[in-house]
Amino acid sequence: MERILRELFADQNLIVRPKLGIIAGGGELVNELCSACSHSGRQYFVVGIKGNADPGKLQGTPHKIIRLGAIGELLSELKRQAVKEIVMVGSIKRPSWQEVRPDLRAMKLLPRFLSGRQGDGDVLKIAITELEKEGFRVVGVEQVLPGLLTPVGNIGRYSPSPQVRKDIAVGLSVATAIGDLDIGQAVVVQQGLILGIEAAEGTDCLISRCGLLSKAGEKGTLIKVRKSFQDPRADLPTIGPYTIKRVQESGLGGIALQACASLIVQRRKVIELADKYGIFLIGVNTNNREPQ
Amino acid sequence: MERILRELFADQNLIVRPKLGIIAGGGELVNELCSACSHSGRQYFVVGIKGNADPGKLQGTPHKIIRLGAIGELLSELKRQAVKEIVMVGSIKRPSWQEVRPDLRAMKLLPRFLSGRQGDGDVLKIAITELEKEGFRVVGVEQVLPGLLTPVGNIGRYSPSPQVRKDIAVGLSVATAIGDLDIGQAVVVQQGLILGIEAAEGTDCLISRCGLLSKAGEKGTLIKVRKSFQDPRADLPTIGPYTIKRVQESGLGGIALQACASLIVQRRKVIELADKYGIFLIGVNTNNREPQ
Repeated sequence: MERILRELFADQNLIVRPKLGIIAGGGELVNELCSACSHSGRQYFVVGIKGNADPGKLQGTPHKIIRLGAIGELLSELKRQAVKEIVMVGSIKRPSWQEVRPDLRAMKLLPRFLSGRQGDGDVLKIAITELEKEGFRVVGVEQVLPGLLTPVGNIGRYSPSPQVRKDIAVGLSVATAIGDLDIGQAVVVQQGLILGIEAAEGTDCLISRCGLLSKAGEKGTLIKVRKSFQDPRADLPTIGPYTIKRVQESGLGGIALQACASLIVQRRKVIELADKYGIFLIGVNTNNREPQ
Repeated sequence: MERILRELFADQNLIVRPKLGIIAGGGELVNELCSACSHSGRQYFVVGIKGNADPGKLQGTPHKIIRLGAIGELLSELKRQAVKEIVMVGSIKRPSWQEVRPDLRAMKLLPRFLSGRQGDGDVLKIAITELEKEGFRVVGVEQVLPGLLTPVGNIGRYSPSPQVRKDIAVGLSVATAIGDLDIGQAVVVQQGLILGIEAAEGTDCLISRCGLLSKAGEKGTLIKVRKSFQDPRADLPTIGPYTIKRVQESGLGGIALQACASLIVQRRKVIELADKYGIFLIGVNTNNREPQ
């Protein structure tokens, strides 16, 4: 009976959903989640990761700042808060082991983290497995805020030229290869040439340096895709108004995002800015690796 | 008989070797080549690629500056100079098609350049094929200056720690994958994490930005390998004194180069600087992908 009710009213938020735990790194998504919870009357609690989450932006929301190595404290705080569902949002800078100072609980996980090279994808997978072992349900942010997922096709007023569509196809194949290696999610392509590939520096730095490398003629494109083996509940490729501003400042022509596997934060503002600057925004279906 | 003589005396430069054509992009290697020719009494002529070769550094050497799109002029100049062997050295920035302004001879090649994405490796392969069609013999720079090739093992006083050797193994596998995609030749790894991957920005920019991304603890390593399908006569990975200075400024710990497939320009100075700064330099045999 409860299941039937849940299915009937799932979209209307009429069912009281369990308290949401938000594990937050950097970025704007956490605030969007908090206000969505507030509007729908859902209870929530934020654990901000020290050095990544901005404590100023968490003023007025129920939250605690915990350092990355204090996994015991993280788990007990989430339990004390009677959180059932957890969502992980925002970027987390990879610290050195010295900075982590693992607590006892984290120490138990160390052998798994230390076995060979760990891309961010691996690390997040381990984190999700551990949270689920403790009885939490880890959900993707798009389950809480379905409006964030990138749709297929043109978003906004502008669309890529046939030449730029070729660049997008090149970018998709390279970005997928880079993702398969668990290195990064983004590339910039201009006139068939890979201007830059993202690793630890993040998308904003990638955009800026590729702006400096751009040639005359048809502008470059930023392409972002999800890592192929990445758990979709963690760290989906994300853009926001800030990304549009950087793209504009750096003289790139547009952004292609993997449809249904990437997020657009503050979509209305993103589209408004893209239209204002003449930047195209397209959601591409990567099953056939061709922009639609 | 001539072949026997050539084999007997190949290393001693006792045979008069044909006039050398040097097609030069940016970087220091061209001057090293010119002085090697002068010392051994070999005739040579430099074609500097406009916007890449530094005309100031070519003062006093027989040379001509030719723009990249003027392939007809390039070929006829090399023939007028009675050049037989050609060596290509230095970096060439990828221009926009607008900047190239192809001449008639270049126009004939355009369809091959325009078919799909062209990494630098593809473009250089096409160039070599065309030069050979015209009757020139294209040789690798290490045939003219064999002392430039990176040897196997530690070069200089310092050697990588066991932890850093793991980073080097990670870097070799990633750099090889990136090279297979004809994107770049270099990566920086620190404590198992890929800090950066080189695309169009070049190694110096890669080093600088990875310095800013570095974490505390064991320092990062620059790893350079040859692209797998790259013609060994073009664009081997190269370092010089300038690279050592950038590595030092950026707080990286050392450099691993593919042995027998990368070049060290001004080796004496490179070793002197590396020893002074406590930077390790190692030539790794990539057949087994483990640093020796």
